[in-house]
Amino acid sequence: MKLLSDIEIAQATEKNHIKNIAEKLNIVEDDLEMYGKYKAKLPLYLIDEDKVKKNNLILVTALTPTPAGEGKTTVSIGLTEGLNKIGKQATVVLREPSLGPVFGIKGGAAGGGYSQVVPMEDINLHFTGDFNAIEKANNLLAALIDNNLQSKVNNLNIDPRTIGWKRVIDMNDRSLRQITIGLGGTANGIPREDGFNITAASEIMAILCMAQGRDDLKERIGNIFVGFTFDKKPIFARDLKAENAMAILLKDAIKPNLVQTLEKNPAIIHGGPFANIAQGTNSIIATKMGLSLSDYVITEAGFGADLGAEKFLNIKCAAAGLNPKCVVLVATIRALRHHGGSPSDEYNTPSVERVEAGFVNLEKHIENIRKFNIEPVVAINSFVSDTDEEVDLIIRKCDALGVHAVVSNGWAEGGNGTIDLAKTVVDIVENKAAEFKPLYNWKSPVKEKIEKIAKEIYGADGVDYDNKANLNLRRIEKLGFNDFPICMAKTQKSFSDNDKLIGRPEGFRITVREIEIAAGAKFLIPILGKMMRMPGLPSKPASEEMFIDDNGKISGLS
Amino acid sequence: MKLLSDIEIAQATEKNHIKNIAEKLNIVEDDLEMYGKYKAKLPLYLIDEDKVKKNNLILVTALTPTPAGEGKTTVSIGLTEGLNKIGKQATVVLREPSLGPVFGIKGGAAGGGYSQVVPMEDINLHFTGDFNAIEKANNLLAALIDNNLQSKVNNLNIDPRTIGWKRVIDMNDRSLRQITIGLGGTANGIPREDGFNITAASEIMAILCMAQGRDDLKERIGNIFVGFTFDKKPIFARDLKAENAMAILLKDAIKPNLVQTLEKNPAIIHGGPFANIAQGTNSIIATKMGLSLSDYVITEAGFGADLGAEKFLNIKCAAAGLNPKCVVLVATIRALRHHGGSPSDEYNTPSVERVEAGFVNLEKHIENIRKFNIEPVVAINSFVSDTDEEVDLIIRKCDALGVHAVVSNGWAEGGNGTIDLAKTVVDIVENKAAEFKPLYNWKSPVKEKIEKIAKEIYGADGVDYDNKANLNLRRIEKLGFNDFPICMAKTQKSFSDNDKLIGRPEGFRITVREIEIAAGAKFLIPILGKMMRMPGLPSKPASEEMFIDDNGKISGLS
Repeated sequence: MKLLSDIEIAQATEKNHIKNIAEKLNIVEDDLEMYGKYKAKLPLYLIDEDKVKKNNLILVTALTPTPAGEGKTTVSIGLTEGLNKIGKQATVVLREPSLGPVFGIKGGAAGGGYSQVVPMEDINLHFTGDFNAIEKANNLLAALIDNNLQSKVNNLNIDPRTIGWKRVIDMNDRSLRQITIGLGGTANGIPREDGFNITAASEIMAILCMAQGRDDLKERIGNIFVGFTFDKKPIFARDLKAENAMAILLKDAIKPNLVQTLEKNPAIIHGGPFANIAQGTNSIIATKMGLSLSDYVITEAGFGADLGAEKFLNIKCAAAGLNPKCVVLVATIRALRHHGGSPSDEYNTPSVERVEAGFVNLEKHIENIRKFNIEPVVAINSFVSDTDEEVDLIIRKCDALGVHAVVSNGWAEGGNGTIDLAKTVVDIVENKAAEFKPLYNWKSPVKEKIEKIAKEIYGADGVDYDNKANLNLRRIEKLGFNDFPICMAKTQKSFSDNDKLIGRPEGFRITVREIEIAAGAKFLIPILGKMMRMPGLPSKPASEEMFIDDNGKISGLS
Repeated sequence: MKLLSDIEIAQATEKNHIKNIAEKLNIVEDDLEMYGKYKAKLPLYLIDEDKVKKNNLILVTALTPTPAGEGKTTVSIGLTEGLNKIGKQATVVLREPSLGPVFGIKGGAAGGGYSQVVPMEDINLHFTGDFNAIEKANNLLAALIDNNLQSKVNNLNIDPRTIGWKRVIDMNDRSLRQITIGLGGTANGIPREDGFNITAASEIMAILCMAQGRDDLKERIGNIFVGFTFDKKPIFARDLKAENAMAILLKDAIKPNLVQTLEKNPAIIHGGPFANIAQGTNSIIATKMGLSLSDYVITEAGFGADLGAEKFLNIKCAAAGLNPKCVVLVATIRALRHHGGSPSDEYNTPSVERVEAGFVNLEKHIENIRKFNIEPVVAINSFVSDTDEEVDLIIRKCDALGVHAVVSNGWAEGGNGTIDLAKTVVDIVENKAAEFKPLYNWKSPVKEKIEKIAKEIYGADGVDYDNKANLNLRRIEKLGFNDFPICMAKTQKSFSDNDKLIGRPEGFRITVREIEIAAGAKFLIPILGKMMRMPGLPSKPASEEMFIDDNGKISGLS
């Protein structure tokens, strides 16, 4: 049997009209803003805070991943199919994929195999224009800043050397990482160093995903920290009177998008902030929308649980008053072999010993989730190279910790492959869910909050601060941003800040090099290493293999 | 009575659901791709070449304009309302406004007063995402070029100094006009000079508007001329295997957009190429779509008739086999005063003498239209400062030339203000329309084509060529692009290439400084002066006065 590609599976599946998907959520057609027959935006007035409190939020996160990722999106979609199969009304709530990587190596991010959201091409391309709107809002502020530098009317006396606001573009384009702008004489502005980030790394993206309404969005935009005047006064976006125009550009982007899974269950897709320098999870509005419309909401957060789940819980849930009932920890035999010492060319080679040795990584994530007073389930995302011995070992070792580990086979079988997982999740929600408890109090001192994450989640002995970080802390104090939560920017490859330390490292310290302020998103970003904000294209870009025919049918997109 | 702003008028008008507008064009709901309730994309299979040939195409153009413009869009919309009022089935087919200028001085471009297309906010903001898709396709090619410069696998040996392909962004951002990219070391590409144009100036925009289908679009994209190798071989987009991925990014942007006028008549809005360095008129696909669906199509082309109508007729109509039946020449008393010597602060001061003196400009445009074997009508776009004497003078002087001049009052009255104009247009279409005849044969030598436009349309004595232009001509010859039509890049303020020569200048020559190649759009662009491709923001940007409330209602957008 020829193995079908994701796009072939997606194109071969008949889709329901989006109004029929909406019907499952009791949304009347008049409330839908359709974008073609298979996508729709949902109006914010459908959010119902009583239902948000009442219904069940499930987070899908993962152990420390290999570079290929361990399939959180695929498991999230598969679990949603499984829950619907066993009679629960469940909606998956996901991030929007970024366009740039589609033409590079990584490809899209709409799930895989028989656990996908569709229309896959649209979701991976421009979708409903949200990324574009974010890009334009971001770049309007940039244009207003540079325009002000040379304005004779309302000049704010901004010191160009202090401007931290970068332009963004949703393209893998390394040539734009570091540039000089404003060249060519007085008509072309004030020359200065600058650079482009990819759109997903824009603070506007982080803001949109933290905002709880239009006014909140506008206020947050106004709070964006731009830089300093020559006499050291802070400048915010509101000083440029930018927040209304930027919020106007986001008037539709703030509304979550409804699509469907391959099994015609509802999927809400909205926002896609970077998981390294931002919160890495979909919008609060989308999560609340899902909870307002269905009994179960399955959602995910980027990278391993030390980053994704920690930020999801301490930032997003704490900010929005969300109370997740269960955490699904995705593990793969491949990743456990990796943590047990397997070199990358042997990830597919069975080894009970390596899996056993690698289990310490999963064990630490299990311990961590319990620190939030949430009960985890382990989902073993099934791969063809897995052996029964390896799988049984994981199940037994989890059992010894009092945790259910269940094989999840949504990739190959859709909802039929996740029924056990779905039943286990329902059992926890109905019988074992407690009140979620954040790890730290936002009002604690900044260093105390960072130390708590480092010690309790990463297992570090302590935290060191570079000079720059200490200078940043004084600035944060001065600007009054002490009470913001912490959005750690750390490698996803290790619990520590050192890529090489796999498994469950011990006896290490982490170093905070600097601390960025996301004054609009309202969090602080301790930077533990070099963070990539603008990917490049590979030597042979994915774009070369794509094809579209005269009728608009696409192939070669993944 | 308080004068309402455009956005207030637009918001106060009840709109029909777009499926009801589609019904007027006999489009069934299943053929619509809705974008909310008031916008829809139309599938290309609705184009019917027999109807394109049979139905009536009307071009709205203008005399040489003042900087504020003379209201072609407003007259086009108003005339469409008027035609529908007298029982004709008419659709207006327009360009999409550019986002950048909305935040600068100019504001949007969805008509004005009681002759507008709606939803005005959406049309002036991201609309259905076409500009974004064009921007992404343009910038993917740019990223692929820079990626190739340092690729070790498929390096094409491109000489970075010869790359003519710029990145684009739909923002008024003068700081990006001239930049250096690829700084910061080997990881960030090859350093070189570059710059951003505004999206409307992208050749992708010109291509989209010239394309007659998806395969034609793809072929044209593949033909884009990128630069030369170090051993002087030409490089095209197809050498980078870019054309499929770029066409994929344009999969929805190629489809025209259906909206409505304030009087609930159909409006098709699609594409918006610059009128200075490109053809300045909506897509061939949109025009053909309009003609496939309604008896009358009213459309417009940028700037005065010497630029807009000339390019519309010699490039677009000749390429697509379109046969316009009538040309509406928009004149304003204000512009005639200007051509009669009025300084700008006296544009609103009545003066029969100045209007009489300025008439020579209109007279030349009338003569020009007749060279295409088309009968013109003059529409006097009404302003409150117009006097009866001035208006009567124009009507009498036109009459002496055998031309009907009719007052058009769509701005204040909608369709009720354009009934006379509509009747005059119908009379010409039904009784006086002949076979349109292009001014030149595409197969003539390049210099002959340029000279023909210069002498017959501009009234020049001849054409001079700078050295660079002659070098360019040899390159065009070598690359085999001689048979392309000519897309003149000239000031819109004068028949000549000198802004100062108002009225009907005589005894002048024009100078071609260089000739650009739009190998994908398939035209040559003789540059007669400095052409703006990236506007800046004013000292006090329009963005400062905008407002959006918590329910998403916008004000201050114009």
